[in-house]
Amino acid sequence: MTSKDKKSEPNGSSIIASRVSREIRDISPYSVPRFDCKIRLDGNESPFSLPKEVQEKVDRAIKDISINRYPDPDAKSLVELISRVCEFPKEGILLGNGSDELIGMLITTFSSGTGKILCPAPTFSMYKLTGLAMGAELIAVPLDQNFDIDLENSMSYIEANDPDLIFLASPNNPTGNMYSAGKIAEIISVARGVVVVDEAYSDFSGYTFLPLIKECENLVILRTLSKVGFAGLRIGMLLARENLVNEINKVRYPYNINSLSQAVAEVVLENHEFVTENIQLIIRERDRVFNALSAMEPIKAYPSDANFIFFRVNNADSLFSRLVEKDILIRNFNKPGRLKNFMRVTIGTPEENDSFLSALSEVLSS
Amino acid sequence: MTSKDKKSEPNGSSIIASRVSREIRDISPYSVPRFDCKIRLDGNESPFSLPKEVQEKVDRAIKDISINRYPDPDAKSLVELISRVCEFPKEGILLGNGSDELIGMLITTFSSGTGKILCPAPTFSMYKLTGLAMGAELIAVPLDQNFDIDLENSMSYIEANDPDLIFLASPNNPTGNMYSAGKIAEIISVARGVVVVDEAYSDFSGYTFLPLIKECENLVILRTLSKVGFAGLRIGMLLARENLVNEINKVRYPYNINSLSQAVAEVVLENHEFVTENIQLIIRERDRVFNALSAMEPIKAYPSDANFIFFRVNNADSLFSRLVEKDILIRNFNKPGRLKNFMRVTIGTPEENDSFLSALSEVLSS
Repeated sequence: MTSKDKKSEPNGSSIIASRVSREIRDISPYSVPRFDCKIRLDGNESPFSLPKEVQEKVDRAIKDISINRYPDPDAKSLVELISRVCEFPKEGILLGNGSDELIGMLITTFSSGTGKILCPAPTFSMYKLTGLAMGAELIAVPLDQNFDIDLENSMSYIEANDPDLIFLASPNNPTGNMYSAGKIAEIISVARGVVVVDEAYSDFSGYTFLPLIKECENLVILRTLSKVGFAGLRIGMLLARENLVNEINKVRYPYNINSLSQAVAEVVLENHEFVTENIQLIIRERDRVFNALSAMEPIKAYPSDANFIFFRVNNADSLFSRLVEKDILIRNFNKPGRLKNFMRVTIGTPEENDSFLSALSEVLSS
Repeated sequence: MTSKDKKSEPNGSSIIASRVSREIRDISPYSVPRFDCKIRLDGNESPFSLPKEVQEKVDRAIKDISINRYPDPDAKSLVELISRVCEFPKEGILLGNGSDELIGMLITTFSSGTGKILCPAPTFSMYKLTGLAMGAELIAVPLDQNFDIDLENSMSYIEANDPDLIFLASPNNPTGNMYSAGKIAEIISVARGVVVVDEAYSDFSGYTFLPLIKECENLVILRTLSKVGFAGLRIGMLLARENLVNEINKVRYPYNINSLSQAVAEVVLENHEFVTENIQLIIRERDRVFNALSAMEPIKAYPSDANFIFFRVNNADSLFSRLVEKDILIRNFNKPGRLKNFMRVTIGTPEENDSFLSALSEVLSS
């Protein structure tokens, strides 16, 4: 095709066909249907707003920002604060515009070997979506019947494919459970690429792989402020050995954390007692909701180490719609195959959980 | 190498050597040396803070945010507002966490053809840095002696290499000038890949290529709020035809614009009269500073269509240090070759510009 021919092409199709990879063309963008329900138990967010005295500190911090200036490119004081809170050296910490950006940075940095990414299925969809967009090959290893890692299968895939990156979300989303710690450790020790343990929900499990970084050169931990009260800030955290962090930092956009989120994150981390209390309340409510769900026929609820519960019903689509009619939004994962009739409910305030349970009970008995 | 051998490798080096591309290993991360000067004319930021009544509206808007909830993934109301301000259909607008992220999204989306990116030199360094990190091949075409596009040379490179992406910053950074509009139009018409005209500084030139999108399926425009008063927000804007935007949107992280920046950007765009006034003041000051610089021996100042001036001195390194001693920070571009002894000064408030000019004059005459 010469440049002269270009004008005869239909609107834009020549560029899209020749310059956009088939993988991207085939992607449906990540999108969660938006329903305007009063009770929102669909996004694994915290239901709690800021305590009044913390909100006042936030307001004062915001006033002090020179919004005409670029943010601190290294978010130095926020990183130092995270270092103290996590008891982890600041040289091993990197921030992202949500974990989403850190996942992208990991793929950009480490999948230049064979370009292969391995993760269990089902799991958080951004590993796959971002990997495909960036031209990597995705290898999905089905979880076992308890949604734990299928170690034998995983080991043979790792042996055969030598993946550059392995993503293990523990607790896993959407299934809610932690994987067996021993299986994760085994995978880390055998993998020759980087193993990313995504601990987005670890505040609700009380278990972390952070101490293992001392022994494992190939371990990267992801954390986030999104599940414990601050999804609006978009602050993801990556923790690893300094030499890995230095390489990943090279593909980071220099001003990736805006000034407002830096300032607000500092205030909430300096005053994090209320965060810990809210987490404890969510854990208690999770156990209560799990017991209530388990007592309902014909629901099969799966034990959760996170701030949500994964469960199976007889007719997810109709249940979903009827809950929306009652102004309650949960997440419907129903699709043919293994996730048929699966749903996920985020743990809300005690009042929201009561509303959900009684609405569910009404729908099931009608 | 078997997994058993791994343990004998030095700390982390095996992963970095085998999984990180040579291009990334060779990158020095984008970093601007930090000097704590009172007068900061180094970052092409606006020197103006928010007017009191706008700051009050910002404070109220911040209080209304539920920071525990995810941001609107489509930043719908901000996009609609930008659509009205730019008089461009909202379906053709995409927001990024600064233009940096949009540059990355463009490279991810469109360089799957030959993986080639062309841009003039010198220009904004993120095109090259991001391209290299993502494994693209960079083709730099030197600007002519007036820092305008060398059309003949560019055309033969385009003909020979068929680049997937061409980045043209106009006005260009760090040179400050607009490229000839006719040359840009010629490149757009000949290129078979996507041409990105980065209009980060176009508010100071009063010239835009936006109307050309109607005729050109391969044109993408970038804008930003960073240069006109809001660098701390990290709001970049991409404008193009809807079918291109739809493809680029597939590689966007779903919640890439945090809730705080969305809210504050809405307030400032709804009250943008002060922004326009500040831009006019910067343009007047730019002309004054240019005339003053041009009158100083041995400075060679280059005409600017942006909010900064590029100029050449006899000994940039010593001049830079002596200005820092006087609490004034500008940007030193000095390196062997074409940029030898080049510096860049951002236009500040009239008082800051006076301080800069008199400090410069003192240093030159001492």
